[in-house]
Amino acid sequence: MSGRRIRVGLDVGGTKIDAVAVDDADEIVGRLRRESGWGEREVVANIVAAVRALAHEAEFEIDEVDSVGVGIPGLVDADAGRVIHAVNLGVESLDLADLGRAQLGIAFRVENDVKAAALGAAVLRGITGSMAYLNLGTGVAAGIVVDGRIWRGSHGTAGEIGHLSVDPNGRVCGCGQVGCIETLCGGGALARAWGRPGSLPVRDILDAAEIGDADAVALRADLFRGAAAATRALVLSADVERVVIGGGLTALGDRLDSGIREALRQDAATSAFMRSLRLDERIEALPAGSPAAAFGAALVGASESSKEIVSHG
Amino acid sequence: MSGRRIRVGLDVGGTKIDAVAVDDADEIVGRLRRESGWGEREVVANIVAAVRALAHEAEFEIDEVDSVGVGIPGLVDADAGRVIHAVNLGVESLDLADLGRAQLGIAFRVENDVKAAALGAAVLRGITGSMAYLNLGTGVAAGIVVDGRIWRGSHGTAGEIGHLSVDPNGRVCGCGQVGCIETLCGGGALARAWGRPGSLPVRDILDAAEIGDADAVALRADLFRGAAAATRALVLSADVERVVIGGGLTALGDRLDSGIREALRQDAATSAFMRSLRLDERIEALPAGSPAAAFGAALVGASESSKEIVSHG
Repeated sequence: MSGRRIRVGLDVGGTKIDAVAVDDADEIVGRLRRESGWGEREVVANIVAAVRALAHEAEFEIDEVDSVGVGIPGLVDADAGRVIHAVNLGVESLDLADLGRAQLGIAFRVENDVKAAALGAAVLRGITGSMAYLNLGTGVAAGIVVDGRIWRGSHGTAGEIGHLSVDPNGRVCGCGQVGCIETLCGGGALARAWGRPGSLPVRDILDAAEIGDADAVALRADLFRGAAAATRALVLSADVERVVIGGGLTALGDRLDSGIREALRQDAATSAFMRSLRLDERIEALPAGSPAAAFGAALVGASESSKEIVSHG
Repeated sequence: MSGRRIRVGLDVGGTKIDAVAVDDADEIVGRLRRESGWGEREVVANIVAAVRALAHEAEFEIDEVDSVGVGIPGLVDADAGRVIHAVNLGVESLDLADLGRAQLGIAFRVENDVKAAALGAAVLRGITGSMAYLNLGTGVAAGIVVDGRIWRGSHGTAGEIGHLSVDPNGRVCGCGQVGCIETLCGGGALARAWGRPGSLPVRDILDAAEIGDADAVALRADLFRGAAAATRALVLSADVERVVIGGGLTALGDRLDSGIREALRQDAATSAFMRSLRLDERIEALPAGSPAAAFGAALVGASESSKEIVSHG
């Protein structure tokens, strides 16, 4: 198998690293998951170990790897390859690109995880115009991709619609505001509002709603109207052609996107203008376990500079 | 004065046309206002008459005019030079570029008025990165300009944040939804909610609020929180560097932008994330009577194709 050129992409989440190897033809030729760990030293060690384990499993040599791209939560300085305030990983400030390159001798690039996933989703779904990737996980954020490039905006906050308030009488958000979209459809906020034990609280909410639990019915409505509000915000501001839904809540399967689609239809029932936008036809959900985030990280890793994937910085 | 090359720009509003002549150095060398009229025939006649009157007043010949650009409300098909559903002008469907060219022998281009104003405001204010122009008039809409080009989005609805709902218990909007940003800070919605006679209802609201009228105090708060919500929506989605406020409500002067700035500060008081965005420092208001819209139309008119000013269609 010599002579292949491999790009590795890593999606580093709060608990797991999802790692993929991508060949010259943009095919995923290997994939594995491992713990992400806690703290700067451990996160770097696990990233390096994930690349080595992936090489072993997918039978390529480290010197066949052209680049490693890492998608990671928190503030990312893509030019410096630095991660700042990745709270869920215990990372305060980490020169990840430099440390990774030093240990593996491969060029590293780092990008915010949602932005990397947005690029991956756009390529996996073959979307060539404009799209937003709406990540419904513990939190809620979106990434925008236009003509194959990540839209970063002026300060890197493009797509942070999770913290747009849509209800002045809503729940208090972790960010300190009231009624943020994330309080309606973030997995963390829903789990707190539900307040009952269980490993998959949002699935429990949907199951309980289906047998008529009143609290669950209300929270299910919040989930769908929050995601619908996020979709509207993305289309009425950036007018993206497609909204692709990803993140942990895609584990809910068809119930998630059919619920969001129904909420969009209900909201549009009274408004010819909203109906003209056909939002229910502009959303699609990634399958649960999609490698979009790690695949997008591999694409980021292979870009020569942040400018190449950052058209509007 | 022969040898000059002139670009004419027209901002066609519901009651008035604002017309400017722009020379080779991007200087405004003439300006006049006249009635816009009602119905397709009258609107075209008044546009043609405005160009002729401007030539007379600013002392240039029609054959010195390279291009005419028209900013007009409603749906605009920029490639076809056609206006559709300009309700306030009594226009259903109008091939404005063809009719104008036939009567004056000059190339015409047509653009949505808010998008043209956004381009004009960006150039007049010397903003080279990303910006949104937030038009607070009878209605509320924004235009986004990135690197000197109008961001149209996939269906021309980029910047339509007036119809983003931010309060499920708010007032019913003309669009049929509830709690749209436009119900809070649109001049038309505020006038209807105020319900008292007067030629400048929003000014009356601010004046009455200053002497303690309770209805006026509530509506003034709506105005400022609505415009603050619009600013947040533009920054949290497209992450524009600047938000420039224009439109009829700029006649309120400093009270408008200081009120919006204060609302942004209050909203951020509980949220470190929102404070980090420094939204109060990212807004600025155009002076009342700014020629931004007509000037932007002149720039649109001189572009060779819609693609030149439409980077992301």
